[in-house]
Amino acid sequence: MEIEVTQEKLAKALATVSRVAMGAKSTLPILSNVLIRVDHEKVSLTTTNLDMAVVEYVPVINSKDGVITAPARLLAEFIQNLPRGEKVTIKTNGDKISTKVGDKYASTINGASADDFPELPEINEEKAVIFRMNIDEFKAGLSQVIIAASGDTTRPSLTGVYFNTYNSALYIAATDGYRLAERKFIKKVESDIAAIVPTSSLQEVMRSIPDEADEIEILFDDTQVRFRAAELEITSKLINGTFPDYRELIPKDNNVEACVDRDELIRVVKIAALFARESNRAIDCTVDSKKKTLEVASISNEVGENKSEVDGQVKGDGDIKLDSRFLMDALNAFEGKEVRFSFSTGTSPLLITNKDDDNYYHLIMPLNG
Amino acid sequence: MEIEVTQEKLAKALATVSRVAMGAKSTLPILSNVLIRVDHEKVSLTTTNLDMAVVEYVPVINSKDGVITAPARLLAEFIQNLPRGEKVTIKTNGDKISTKVGDKYASTINGASADDFPELPEINEEKAVIFRMNIDEFKAGLSQVIIAASGDTTRPSLTGVYFNTYNSALYIAATDGYRLAERKFIKKVESDIAAIVPTSSLQEVMRSIPDEADEIEILFDDTQVRFRAAELEITSKLINGTFPDYRELIPKDNNVEACVDRDELIRVVKIAALFARESNRAIDCTVDSKKKTLEVASISNEVGENKSEVDGQVKGDGDIKLDSRFLMDALNAFEGKEVRFSFSTGTSPLLITNKDDDNYYHLIMPLNG
Repeated sequence: MEIEVTQEKLAKALATVSRVAMGAKSTLPILSNVLIRVDHEKVSLTTTNLDMAVVEYVPVINSKDGVITAPARLLAEFIQNLPRGEKVTIKTNGDKISTKVGDKYASTINGASADDFPELPEINEEKAVIFRMNIDEFKAGLSQVIIAASGDTTRPSLTGVYFNTYNSALYIAATDGYRLAERKFIKKVESDIAAIVPTSSLQEVMRSIPDEADEIEILFDDTQVRFRAAELEITSKLINGTFPDYRELIPKDNNVEACVDRDELIRVVKIAALFARESNRAIDCTVDSKKKTLEVASISNEVGENKSEVDGQVKGDGDIKLDSRFLMDALNAFEGKEVRFSFSTGTSPLLITNKDDDNYYHLIMPLNG
Repeated sequence: MEIEVTQEKLAKALATVSRVAMGAKSTLPILSNVLIRVDHEKVSLTTTNLDMAVVEYVPVINSKDGVITAPARLLAEFIQNLPRGEKVTIKTNGDKISTKVGDKYASTINGASADDFPELPEINEEKAVIFRMNIDEFKAGLSQVIIAASGDTTRPSLTGVYFNTYNSALYIAATDGYRLAERKFIKKVESDIAAIVPTSSLQEVMRSIPDEADEIEILFDDTQVRFRAAELEITSKLINGTFPDYRELIPKDNNVEACVDRDELIRVVKIAALFARESNRAIDCTVDSKKKTLEVASISNEVGENKSEVDGQVKGDGDIKLDSRFLMDALNAFEGKEVRFSFSTGTSPLLITNKDDDNYYHLIMPLNG
């Protein structure tokens, strides 16, 4: 195998794929390697952690067919540190990988045969359900929803983001049983889907997608999903399980409501959270229609107590006890200037919406008062 | 006690002093508090970890005398999160500290009596030896030297920076036994000093000194040092011990020498370090007068081997085996474009200097070849 490539292109591709190898379980050492394959002038770099594979195609100047694996982190850091703009030549000799830049830089890295590299997941693209969307919208929407996913692996179906179609639109949703977030992704789609994608794979997708790409392609088959943007392809297993029928949970007639400035509410929740550290992060939110305020208070025997108010447009009266971290996560996920904060009683879920954008909502279960 | 103060001023002062309280040992809980003292309109915030005390004076709008201690981290984060530009009122009622901003923000923090706060170190300023210097020079010089100090507390005198006068100039030096750095601080001073200041205190000084201050004042008595800049005062114990007579170590006639571009040398040392991870960070440096190069090589049975060259002005021939981390630390501490790299044999120390600035040098002991 032989490749002649510019330092920048190789460094960029290695930086993307090496992350998965660096995070891989050490039980199978070959997973910390990157698979370098040259096949008819097409050069690909691949890493996998068995749940997911990342492939990046690299445009090269010259190449000869062949395949090898190399320690991903070492190779990435080595190429990264070579002088910019230089041509790098990589050549294999058995399992040895020699790298040269001009006559100043020479190294030999111990590689390992590609035969030991795990088989990579394949998707039958012709039979797959395909969605395409703008990358910025994809990233923004996903980051609004992924925060509500569970980290508790005893309930696997809650550790992912649920891609689902409903009335011909594509939605994504996540819940950990205490909170729920849903975003409408594509207004009108032709095919139907109901699939749970692991949060860890989506985080890798968000980190790896190149900023310069415009469109992301999402392909589902029965057990796998593939995300493709520019020269990058990430293929992940789906989570086998049933996602809760979450649409039933959305409260329909919340009679207590406050529309307030989001930044101001974030400020008072942050302050209340400081006093709630020793009391399970519990903060009390009170909507007062006479004072036209949303009051946020917290108390701790140890450190003291705190009360702040935010003015707003207010309907009804009531109070609800919430986990300050969940409320902060939710408020940070919104974008607009104002949020609408509504509930019916202190034991029913809190609904947070954006006055000007009904594509996203966030639901938080109250702490039992 | 009562204070009326703008949010920004109080937040800034608390951010500075609270760090020491947050890092304090938890064996004495009062150390995580900040002492707030109002004495004839002079308001001071003080924290201590027993080795060192940080005092910041805060300009206030109004005040009434008194003294209290409050949880430093909570108070700092609370004030930090209040709206900017607002007036904050702080009032004590016994050990309770009530804080108000307008009629929107109110809180009560449980404080603790100042009687339990440790006694603070005092310096007799009239008898102290005093140096004054530009803050940027102080910070820059200190950061060049502090990297060579030891972290090994079994040899306390090496865990500090040695402030010493020699031929009427003030120098600072640090060594961990494997490397040594010295900087000339002030060309001409009137008084003499020989004192070892703990690295931890100096790091706090570097972090805390306000950027807007011009001059730092350094006061020594027999057992303590005080750093003063703008409204900040940091007082630290000195390390009781003798600093090695390091001037004897400086080699005088190094006959092997290479003057090379610093950035290029940093690059090749970084690369060599990648291949030296499994071999005690050992890298081989060879000066070759025929090729006019400094060659840096490393080898590891596990990962492979590497060799790079830097062109330069070269005298003599020889090679020396170095710890790549020590060499990287040293090269990063220099500022100029070129460094002079010189030694006499592979078992004598390496001297690194700057061609254009003889106020700083760095010495590294070779690894036994």
